[in-house]
Amino acid sequence: MPLQLNEAELDAFMHEVFDQVADDFQVERVTETELTVRLRVQHRHLRPGGTVSGPSMFALADVSAYLMTLARIGPKALAVTTNCSIDFMRKPRAGVDLIAQTRLLKLGRALSVSDVLLYSEGQADPVARASLTYSLPPA
Amino acid sequence: MPLQLNEAELDAFMHEVFDQVADDFQVERVTETELTVRLRVQHRHLRPGGTVSGPSMFALADVSAYLMTLARIGPKALAVTTNCSIDFMRKPRAGVDLIAQTRLLKLGRALSVSDVLLYSEGQADPVARASLTYSLPPA
Amino acid sequence: MPLQLNEAELDAFMHEVFDQVADDFQVERVTETELTVRLRVQHRHLRPGGTVSGPSMFALADVSAYLMTLARIGPKALAVTTNCSIDFMRKPRAGVDLIAQTRLLKLGRALSVSDVLLYSEGQADPVARASLTYSLPPA
Amino acid sequence: MPLQLNEAELDAFMHEVFDQVADDFQVERVTETELTVRLRVQHRHLRPGGTVSGPSMFALADVSAYLMTLARIGPKALAVTTNCSIDFMRKPRAGVDLIAQTRLLKLGRALSVSDVLLYSEGQADPVARASLTYSLPPA
Repeated sequence: MPLQLNEAELDAFMHEVFDQVADDFQVERVTETELTVRLRVQHRHLRPGGTVSGPSMFALADVSAYLMTLARIGPKALAVTTNCSIDFMRKPRAGVDLIAQTRLLKLGRALSVSDVLLYSEGQADPVARASLTYSLPPA
Repeated sequence: MPLQLNEAELDAFMHEVFDQVADDFQVERVTETELTVRLRVQHRHLRPGGTVSGPSMFALADVSAYLMTLARIGPKALAVTTNCSIDFMRKPRAGVDLIAQTRLLKLGRALSVSDVLLYSEGQADPVARASLTYSLPPA
Repeated sequence: MPLQLNEAELDAFMHEVFDQVADDFQVERVTETELTVRLRVQHRHLRPGGTVSGPSMFALADVSAYLMTLARIGPKALAVTTNCSIDFMRKPRAGVDLIAQTRLLKLGRALSVSDVLLYSEGQADPVARASLTYSLPPA
Repeated sequence: MPLQLNEAELDAFMHEVFDQVADDFQVERVTETELTVRLRVQHRHLRPGGTVSGPSMFALADVSAYLMTLARIGPKALAVTTNCSIDFMRKPRAGVDLIAQTRLLKLGRALSVSDVLLYSEGQADPVARASLTYSLPPA
């Protein structure tokens, strides 16, 4: 199964189904097994001290695994997250965007599994890691 | 170690440190090992179709484990989430609040562990379950 | 869907499909949503110091979620674990069995979700908690 | 902090502290952030059908994260697993060893975080992925 949606098509689909948050995210690069997404950090993503909040990091990991899956199965809004395990490892740097690097580890008939590393832009060490399972709608 | 903060004190602390989201949450009941928190569902918590979004459910689980921990160690803003594993099991019901039932499973010197069941108000089956580890500041 | 297998039937099924380890486990009690399983701790389950090893605790949680699922769907060996998140919270006590208390949180068409608390027999505080997802064979 | 233990030293330490299972595992390669460990698959690691069991895969992931951590902090047996999240994605191939590829994502004062991909030897797609947190003994 080759790539079904490119960067622009993934962005357009996000605006169609998640219009209220789609401007927060920018799809930067997609291949058959990898995806890069940027969180354009706004004031509403922050905690006191200027660091990105846990729920904003979760949201970035979740949307990344969703778009990675749709890039392969096509624009099926009904894929739903069934599990996420996330480790918060370092405090994100204030004043910079977050970059999510996603790998698709499995694309089965019923489930996809991805893992995601989150970085403060320009930093070498990840701020968080997550793995996510999506349940896929029947063909 | 008995209870350090009651319901009103937990609400007050939330407003002090997370003022931008504190009105979303209401501490309903706290004991030495259990906590009930309500998410007052607003439009910004929803996905298309009127269901509560994954990041909003994560945020409710996370704030619940945080407040459960602080209820026992006192108002120490520096406790940080290190891990969360969350299973999304059912679609939340549209138009009702979410209720989080938290149990404190461990309160150690360095880590606390809690698990959380999330319910659409008035429903018997949970919509999600989560377990969270918080790293505690040195005494 | 009522209970399909009682305690004796679950034990018999374990001996049929996992004969090499079935004697390690004893099903003590099953209801439509809860299951109690004992790990009869043997030398091969121990780490130096006499405490039960992590893999043995994982195995107990895993078999418990499997049997809880089969108790409801019937003896279908093809159910497979897709995810487990486990927190190790306290050192098990030496010289006593482990008891697993399982709750079935969801039994869907394609997936079951259970959580499990593990106790050293006779102790009030759990040594570990786990949540497990099983993928169910098509009907 | 450079590498404290090389491949032979890690193998020797395993024999010292986990003698009953140390022959199951072979450290193949270690760097400051990566580790490769082989599980020499024996009959006791198998399920009916000849596939490696879940507890054996958990054990391989767990020992890998432990050895990756010790490779950096030195031979401190008291490091303990606090959390593991594992996704089982494909059935391991019968009759071949399992190979674990570990990356160290964080080495803090109190915690280490690693992720692990498990492969049936000679196969391109991983059979499982795991992330593990270890609690480190005070310096």
